[in-house]
Amino acid sequence: MSEQIKLSKISTRAPKGIDKDETKGKTLAILQELDELQNLMFAERKHALLVVIQGMDASGKDGLIKDVFGSLNPQGVKVQSFKTPTEEEAAHDFLWRIHKNTPEKGMIQLFNRSHYEDVLITRVHGWCDDKTAKRRIDAINNFEQLLEENATHVIKLYLHVSHEEQRKRLEERLEIPRKMWKYNQSDLAESELWEAYMKYYETVFKKCDSVPWHIIPADQNWYKSYLVATIIRDTLRAFKMEYPELKE
Amino acid sequence: MSEQIKLSKISTRAPKGIDKDETKGKTLAILQELDELQNLMFAERKHALLVVIQGMDASGKDGLIKDVFGSLNPQGVKVQSFKTPTEEEAAHDFLWRIHKNTPEKGMIQLFNRSHYEDVLITRVHGWCDDKTAKRRIDAINNFEQLLEENATHVIKLYLHVSHEEQRKRLEERLEIPRKMWKYNQSDLAESELWEAYMKYYETVFKKCDSVPWHIIPADQNWYKSYLVATIIRDTLRAFKMEYPELKE
Repeated sequence: MSEQIKLSKISTRAPKGIDKDETKGKTLAILQELDELQNLMFAERKHALLVVIQGMDASGKDGLIKDVFGSLNPQGVKVQSFKTPTEEEAAHDFLWRIHKNTPEKGMIQLFNRSHYEDVLITRVHGWCDDKTAKRRIDAINNFEQLLEENATHVIKLYLHVSHEEQRKRLEERLEIPRKMWKYNQSDLAESELWEAYMKYYETVFKKCDSVPWHIIPADQNWYKSYLVATIIRDTLRAFKMEYPELKE
Repeated sequence: MSEQIKLSKISTRAPKGIDKDETKGKTLAILQELDELQNLMFAERKHALLVVIQGMDASGKDGLIKDVFGSLNPQGVKVQSFKTPTEEEAAHDFLWRIHKNTPEKGMIQLFNRSHYEDVLITRVHGWCDDKTAKRRIDAINNFEQLLEENATHVIKLYLHVSHEEQRKRLEERLEIPRKMWKYNQSDLAESELWEAYMKYYETVFKKCDSVPWHIIPADQNWYKSYLVATIIRDTLRAFKMEYPELKE
């Protein structure tokens, strides 16, 4: 099990001295390589990639999906957003709707929120007691192990914004017409529960670490995209893939 | 019902005098507008778009998906490829697997092949008799009408390549390592059935025209992408969408 992480001690910004324009240029080059790697992955059909994207409201999950995965071939990328469970979903175990959406070999599957909400928002609001949470955490670990054993590589990302940056972005949703559709009345109330969320996130990072978490400083979108593109690229490179030869 | 189309009389290339580089520039500008329109569509959630992509092997369906839809937000675009039905799919009516994959409002759904294969490849090989084909054609027309009546706009594309261009592309799959994975031994045998395919395609264009078909000259990828991007852009523009105001 990992050491206890204190999110408040981890920077939400790029280290000093990192140049924005230079980094954007690097990201572009990485995305070009990613495009090639994804084509190879789709052709080879030996590996699947599941990218779990977690973060507070307005931490930039949607933007990340567009910026890093928007230039890839849509035939090889699927996105699933997990919201309040439907009646049918709620009538099953919490991993049922998740498992249905895991990727087949050759594919990249993005989860916009995930099974982790079942030990985050539910705990913050007291819909899930500690005992249930413990059982779920064990189930999540077993589930992720099952995936890893079956050529589905899991990448878990936490988009780490500061409370201040989050407030700024939520306010924009009230002011900029193009962003208003993203606003939910519950957002501001949830934002008030920041400390509780941080506590349960820290628990998740500690207890669900057999597949490691990446804490991504996310106050600056250009730095966030650069880090995530790098992680995805390095993961795909490590698959050491090859184009299949002619079928007989 | 439309007049009878003769595919052999329709050009598979751009009209003379159309400049390649200029057209590519126009396509880029259209794709930028599309990006904005898709964002709006996703926010508004009043319209769904279903793009049915048909064409012979190597007519450029995969490339079209990448070139025209690859720059859009993956959160708003889904792709479904329809191959030989699985056992479960074959145990249902032919529209069952199709209907399951129609888009919800706000989304763009691409079909790489579709329900039309059930009156194309099946007829070419005699797996489907004329009486069954007639019933299926009626069912397809009713089904597409149902979609149109429920805010799901259907765009049907036929990628029109010449037999010569197809042969050239299939040969490349035997020669270029990066393309070998796309090769199927059956491709060349299917290519020999060209005339039968053209006949049944022409029937489909005539009988299934309440939602119109777009015959896209597809020997040149740059022209194909330009035409399709234009059709999608014009369709979305016609929705006259607006960003939703703040929810109460």
